[in-house]
Amino acid sequence: MRGVRALVFDVFGTLVDWRGSIAREAQALLAPRGVQTDWLAFADAWRAQYQPAMEEVRSGQIPFSKLDVLHRRNLEVVLKELGIRDLDEAMKAQLNLAWHRLDAWPDVAPGLQRLRERYRIAPCSNGNISLMVNLARRNGLPWDAILGAEVARDYKPKAIVYQSAAAAFDLNPAEVLMVAAHSNDLAAAASAGLRTAHIARPDEKGPGHGESRPSVPVDIAARDLLHLADQLDALH
Amino acid sequence: MRGVRALVFDVFGTLVDWRGSIAREAQALLAPRGVQTDWLAFADAWRAQYQPAMEEVRSGQIPFSKLDVLHRRNLEVVLKELGIRDLDEAMKAQLNLAWHRLDAWPDVAPGLQRLRERYRIAPCSNGNISLMVNLARRNGLPWDAILGAEVARDYKPKAIVYQSAAAAFDLNPAEVLMVAAHSNDLAAAASAGLRTAHIARPDEKGPGHGESRPSVPVDIAARDLLHLADQLDALH
Repeated sequence: MRGVRALVFDVFGTLVDWRGSIAREAQALLAPRGVQTDWLAFADAWRAQYQPAMEEVRSGQIPFSKLDVLHRRNLEVVLKELGIRDLDEAMKAQLNLAWHRLDAWPDVAPGLQRLRERYRIAPCSNGNISLMVNLARRNGLPWDAILGAEVARDYKPKAIVYQSAAAAFDLNPAEVLMVAAHSNDLAAAASAGLRTAHIARPDEKGPGHGESRPSVPVDIAARDLLHLADQLDALH
Repeated sequence: MRGVRALVFDVFGTLVDWRGSIAREAQALLAPRGVQTDWLAFADAWRAQYQPAMEEVRSGQIPFSKLDVLHRRNLEVVLKELGIRDLDEAMKAQLNLAWHRLDAWPDVAPGLQRLRERYRIAPCSNGNISLMVNLARRNGLPWDAILGAEVARDYKPKAIVYQSAAAAFDLNPAEVLMVAAHSNDLAAAASAGLRTAHIARPDEKGPGHGESRPSVPVDIAARDLLHLADQLDALH
């Protein structure tokens, strides 16, 4: 860990509660229009379309499109699936921006403040730049730069996304620690040459439906970002 | 101006004093090695290689390379020109990073703090991401994102650089105000569809050798960033 100079972070699930936030935002917008549904199931259904849509980009089937564009397309699938009809275009556009209004877990803002004292920090997310900027403003995330899919023009877990984040900081992959609550993200980062830190988010996808520990070898496993900062501080 | 949602900034000369800072950094590194030269002339000579090197990228003669890479190549030209010999590779690498240690003009940090209350803000510079991050850390520049040449993978004044900064914020070019102390940068931004604000830096290239006013039509002309913030506040 001593050679690590920058930390890059997964965002959805690792830093922000996408599930609770999307459920809240969808309810706030749609309930007044008379829509009744299970709002957490609505969030889960939307998120279920996430990987298949990105896979079209990763496989080269469609050119790179921002996650906002994929989310908007996926929303149509979800609305159809749940039998929600008659939403106008303006409402759908507003609903799509629910992904820009996600709340961070409580340890995230203070954790990033501590971590940025020793390290360069950036998101390495599949979310687009404007989405990351809006989450940062909402939650007080003190990023040095916004890196990730839109800068790399491809989606994780493709190696180029992790490697381009390291390159943007003028670092070798081994000088960068990828931080995520998902073992598959960390396995891909490790294959791309990065160091890895797992953050426990046991309730990400509902109570008990998240990773409380990694299922792959990692360099560090932490309960949250403050625990990660403690462990990194102990090395100095 | 009422439709403006984001401000993007030229950096070298507009926000930071490249000339005085490069002279200081070069002297600090080279004088102890016995090099004697006019340090401001050293800075000017290095900067003189800036446009020709980027033109090779803009014209498609060489693939996109970070400004750090161009600066390093240009440094060889300057050292030869000034008859400075026998510097080892480590010293040249350290000297090249002088561009990461430039000081901001005094109005810049407080000006950006004010401007970010109403607007998204980002550099739209030809400098690479790591260089922008280091200048931001050194000078306390509270960017929302690092945009510009490395994200667009081409150099200003090509339209794509300004337009890709707007696109990263999900904005039309007319919703973005380009802020610069150089009329040619603003003319190019205006051609790309952006609004423009000129900042007076009359001493950028030495006393009286800078633009105290724009030589092209602009939307706003300001003495410094605080004056720009005053003018934008007056619109609300």
